[in-house]
Amino acid sequence: MRYELYYWTGIQGRGEFVRLALEDAGAAYTDVAREKGDPVIMPFLRGMHPGALPFAPPILRAGRQVIAQTANILAFLAPRHGLVPASATSQIYAAQLQQTVTDIVAEAHDTHHPISVEQYYEEQRAEARKRAAAFCTQRIPKYLGYFEQVLTRGDGRHAIGRRNSYVDLSLFQLMAGLTYAFPHTMKGLRRRTTRLRTLCDRVSDRPNIAAYLASPRRIPFNEDGIFRHYAELDET
Amino acid sequence: MRYELYYWTGIQGRGEFVRLALEDAGAAYTDVAREKGDPVIMPFLRGMHPGALPFAPPILRAGRQVIAQTANILAFLAPRHGLVPASATSQIYAAQLQQTVTDIVAEAHDTHHPISVEQYYEEQRAEARKRAAAFCTQRIPKYLGYFEQVLTRGDGRHAIGRRNSYVDLSLFQLMAGLTYAFPHTMKGLRRRTTRLRTLCDRVSDRPNIAAYLASPRRIPFNEDGIFRHYAELDET
Repeated sequence: MRYELYYWTGIQGRGEFVRLALEDAGAAYTDVAREKGDPVIMPFLRGMHPGALPFAPPILRAGRQVIAQTANILAFLAPRHGLVPASATSQIYAAQLQQTVTDIVAEAHDTHHPISVEQYYEEQRAEARKRAAAFCTQRIPKYLGYFEQVLTRGDGRHAIGRRNSYVDLSLFQLMAGLTYAFPHTMKGLRRRTTRLRTLCDRVSDRPNIAAYLASPRRIPFNEDGIFRHYAELDET
Repeated sequence: MRYELYYWTGIQGRGEFVRLALEDAGAAYTDVAREKGDPVIMPFLRGMHPGALPFAPPILRAGRQVIAQTANILAFLAPRHGLVPASATSQIYAAQLQQTVTDIVAEAHDTHHPISVEQYYEEQRAEARKRAAAFCTQRIPKYLGYFEQVLTRGDGRHAIGRRNSYVDLSLFQLMAGLTYAFPHTMKGLRRRTTRLRTLCDRVSDRPNIAAYLASPRRIPFNEDGIFRHYAELDET
């Protein structure tokens, strides 16, 4: 079966977590909006397609099934492609970790939009500086400290069990995004993120991921996405 | 099996979504911190218990299994207690909807803490007013409009299929919280939330829920929780 992914063009965004899983698995998929344009997403949001009603992209179509919410899409895909162990306990733990990635991704977004998603960054710069300071000094260390502990608790190299899983791919993406947006902060956390950084090296060396990252399918990070680099937000 | 729920005492918070499912199901559970105090939560967060490592409560212990993240706990409990249809498609849709509830709950929290969870509300009041204005005028209508559409797309009365599910219980709690925190805003949305309000009446009339809401186990909403009533945040 060929999957259809629907996500806003021009940014990695939340869709990137799904892309990394599909790419690592070597799954056949079409990144529909990138071929046909963002308007193809609207009928889903307007309820014109049967099946689940999405609040927002990413949206995955798998045959007749429509699935939204990043962590939910990944929990659906992973067991079909060997990206999570078969045991229910492992899959529940993986979902828990992925939902925690969802949380920090939302917080990363809010560093540049602390007041309203309907306003430009430039309209909320003062508040963004304050929120980003709290994010960089408190939240990033707390979340990454947690994920380091998760790795330590496992075999030291993988989030779940002793094999690569979709959670590892998402941790790679989280680290890549944070490092792009907050290089100064992340540099200061190097010694406290050794396991995460080793994981990132391993993930980026996986053949399908390496090929993907080198391809035009990998959209560069930019200041329209979730992880944005504004130097003034990375000063603390 | 008797479940153990671990959540901060004194507030409904995210734990309340789990409590409502356990209560509706008539499941045997101990609300451990309320019996023994908040310190019982710390060993989980410090990694001193085997099993999944939680980032934050709510935490559910089911036999030897430890589960965190609200939507994840509910996805685990629901099929065991008839709180979601048996089909995989329904369960995936339910998880999607619950994760969208998670998103608006986080946004509701950030109306009173738009800058930092480490600071008091009083230290971020000016920013809170701005964020709450955007939440009340843009985000609440968008999310509730979405959930109304979800109900309309189903049988008009239930989020998933034609039966009560954990998503319905969570929508009840979401509406209760928003109505407590933002009565003025919610009054203005009465005509646009008719299906949701009918759902709330139905859920609160369910025998186990009615008994729970009338019991001392239901902690009143208050200004330490996620849904806080500050009149100045409900003016728009």
